[in-house]
Amino acid sequence: MLRQFRPQRSLAKQPISRLLAAWQEPSRSYSIHANAASTAKIQDIDPSKLTITKTKAPKELIPASELVFGRSFTDHMLSIEWTASEGWLAPRITPYQNLSLDPASCVFHYAFECFEGMKAYKDSNGKVRLFRPTKNMERMNKSSARIALPTFDQAAMIKLISQFSQMEERFIPSTKGYSLYLRPTMIGTQKTLGVGPPGSALLYVIASPVGPYYPTGFKAISLEATNYAVRAWPGGVGDKKLGANYAPCIVPQLEAAKRGFHQNLWLFGEEEFVTEVGTMNMFAAIKNKETGQKELITAPLDGTILEGVTRDCVLSLAREKLVPEGWKVLERKYTMKELSEAAQEGRLLEAFGAGTAAIVSPIRNICWKGDMVDCGLRPEEEAGELASKMKNWIEARQYGDEEHEWSYTVPE
Amino acid sequence: MLRQFRPQRSLAKQPISRLLAAWQEPSRSYSIHANAASTAKIQDIDPSKLTITKTKAPKELIPASELVFGRSFTDHMLSIEWTASEGWLAPRITPYQNLSLDPASCVFHYAFECFEGMKAYKDSNGKVRLFRPTKNMERMNKSSARIALPTFDQAAMIKLISQFSQMEERFIPSTKGYSLYLRPTMIGTQKTLGVGPPGSALLYVIASPVGPYYPTGFKAISLEATNYAVRAWPGGVGDKKLGANYAPCIVPQLEAAKRGFHQNLWLFGEEEFVTEVGTMNMFAAIKNKETGQKELITAPLDGTILEGVTRDCVLSLAREKLVPEGWKVLERKYTMKELSEAAQEGRLLEAFGAGTAAIVSPIRNICWKGDMVDCGLRPEEEAGELASKMKNWIEARQYGDEEHEWSYTVPE
Repeated sequence: MLRQFRPQRSLAKQPISRLLAAWQEPSRSYSIHANAASTAKIQDIDPSKLTITKTKAPKELIPASELVFGRSFTDHMLSIEWTASEGWLAPRITPYQNLSLDPASCVFHYAFECFEGMKAYKDSNGKVRLFRPTKNMERMNKSSARIALPTFDQAAMIKLISQFSQMEERFIPSTKGYSLYLRPTMIGTQKTLGVGPPGSALLYVIASPVGPYYPTGFKAISLEATNYAVRAWPGGVGDKKLGANYAPCIVPQLEAAKRGFHQNLWLFGEEEFVTEVGTMNMFAAIKNKETGQKELITAPLDGTILEGVTRDCVLSLAREKLVPEGWKVLERKYTMKELSEAAQEGRLLEAFGAGTAAIVSPIRNICWKGDMVDCGLRPEEEAGELASKMKNWIEARQYGDEEHEWSYTVPE
Repeated sequence: MLRQFRPQRSLAKQPISRLLAAWQEPSRSYSIHANAASTAKIQDIDPSKLTITKTKAPKELIPASELVFGRSFTDHMLSIEWTASEGWLAPRITPYQNLSLDPASCVFHYAFECFEGMKAYKDSNGKVRLFRPTKNMERMNKSSARIALPTFDQAAMIKLISQFSQMEERFIPSTKGYSLYLRPTMIGTQKTLGVGPPGSALLYVIASPVGPYYPTGFKAISLEATNYAVRAWPGGVGDKKLGANYAPCIVPQLEAAKRGFHQNLWLFGEEEFVTEVGTMNMFAAIKNKETGQKELITAPLDGTILEGVTRDCVLSLAREKLVPEGWKVLERKYTMKELSEAAQEGRLLEAFGAGTAAIVSPIRNICWKGDMVDCGLRPEEEAGELASKMKNWIEARQYGDEEHEWSYTVPE
């Protein structure tokens, strides 16, 4: 049986001898709920138990050209409740509806929440496809475990998301660039204020039809390097997709916007390492100072940057297609100073952000300590060569124009 | 008028010349909602507009001895909605009830949430008293502003909390050590997935009757110094009372519990500075190595520790009552190495945590790199001299046994 860790009170009554005995005998342990799904006694997600309640008031489709990211949602939602004693209960697809939660629920107080961002696409045959869904489910389990929320069977969840996406397929426009944004979300629902692992949780998926990020072609963005706030820290949670990583980013984003920039750029440490662009990973293409070698660089997964799925796609495609053309692909730390020097010496070829929303987002320049670091685009250019290629390569696999294991065709 | 910052799309369409013009002209600004309440056009919290709907099913009181922190709540709750266009709407006291929220609400995805912990006490005349409520409201405004949630008029909010506490006074046991824990909470309620400042929010207060933290007298706690995870960092949000700071703390807390410790101790940096105990501030009383001077030390407010109200009480009382007795009171950085050396040399007199829940929590020892640092208590002792005095001094002011400006008597 799982035991709730309710801090201090009961343990405080134990004599120190017993505490030390416990210390010497690590087997006397308080289970971490994050491991709950892997124990035998409580049940994992079971797609065969899915119940479906269809809406009686199907929504009218919004014209594709009027879609705004995350503003309109489909007819239904997928929900799965979890309790520490029973595990994952029967999945339900119901009409999209409000959640009714006790005001003491721990999601409102202690940010017990994590999420994923993924998309369903319609291919040229009208079939629904998911893109690398295992990557998202793997990451979601890492996120939830880090905040003592339950983990789950990834294949079972992909099956349910597939079924849900297929059910909502009328909301996915067939036009290239359009897709159905899927938002798996897990929240802690325990309704007590003690700070401890949630004894209950809710995993749900909502879906929002979205248009292309750049409807009329790329528009390069301008960034402000943030030097007064720090997004993440080694030993922190900046590599997980937790709600906790987002609210604190808004004020720096607004500060950058106030001065006319599209996004802020997160730096780290006295060295001013480049980490992330707003809510995207960042890539820079430079010519090596000594050798002239062309290098595509991005920050390593050291705990301070999100483990982006698009980041992984860019790296994979670069290794597959750019390395044979003579490029080097490097996951390594790099600084603003290095970018600035490369820019001054004409060695900064291009830079771009990478994320699920935009796929790639070309960067025109970065304001750093009041100076503008020019990222290599000509004035009339909105995207560099690599950014353009990457977008095409990734989209070809997302929409199934190129058959590839990254694309998962949903059974009808 | 406030303008929504919806990232990228609209700005991305702007030519760089316009962006740079904006950069050169800082007056063209995107308002941060956090400042909204201070602008003239939208309304602040107005206690005169309060409406009260009383419950038709008053709860039975739970016997005082059976109260568990944050598990049972009073009959009613206080709620105030905010929108970016209208400001704070009319406050409402209603029966305690579930919140009904769209599953896309930003509180579930991006941790737009902050809270306070404060208490209402019943004095020997049966009058309800709040303790330093301005401190809590000040801090709540700092927390909300940091995550682009709205701020509010502190005096107006204290008036409403007073009225709410008075209404729930039957839930406050008259016995010393008991109180009504008040939980002001603010959440972002905007129901779109774009990462930006919430255009709507809800501020609510729920109340839970609580018993003394140590019902049978102090019990000293054992800590495990955490060396693999970091709670907060300079430039982060660790000094604010955000939900975001709590969920990531559970796994380290469970890890410490697994090895038999009551709480973990948060360190910072290669120097292993001592920062916080679990969810409390930390104090150490040492004899200076060179001078033999008795010093009460606690970490400074450098952004990595919570600005605790109890911390402030302990510092004030120490300056008022201990300094005349020859103590030095210091807010300065100190390391585990320093504590360990002091312990070995018999100079670590005592250590304790400080927070609203326990007031003070004596520390017996700290496990650091596998060694036990003894914090100066004799085996039969459960609290040091300072911890005992502090608890008494603070309680005297909380319960109005000593009339003091910290205690705010609620008008009947």
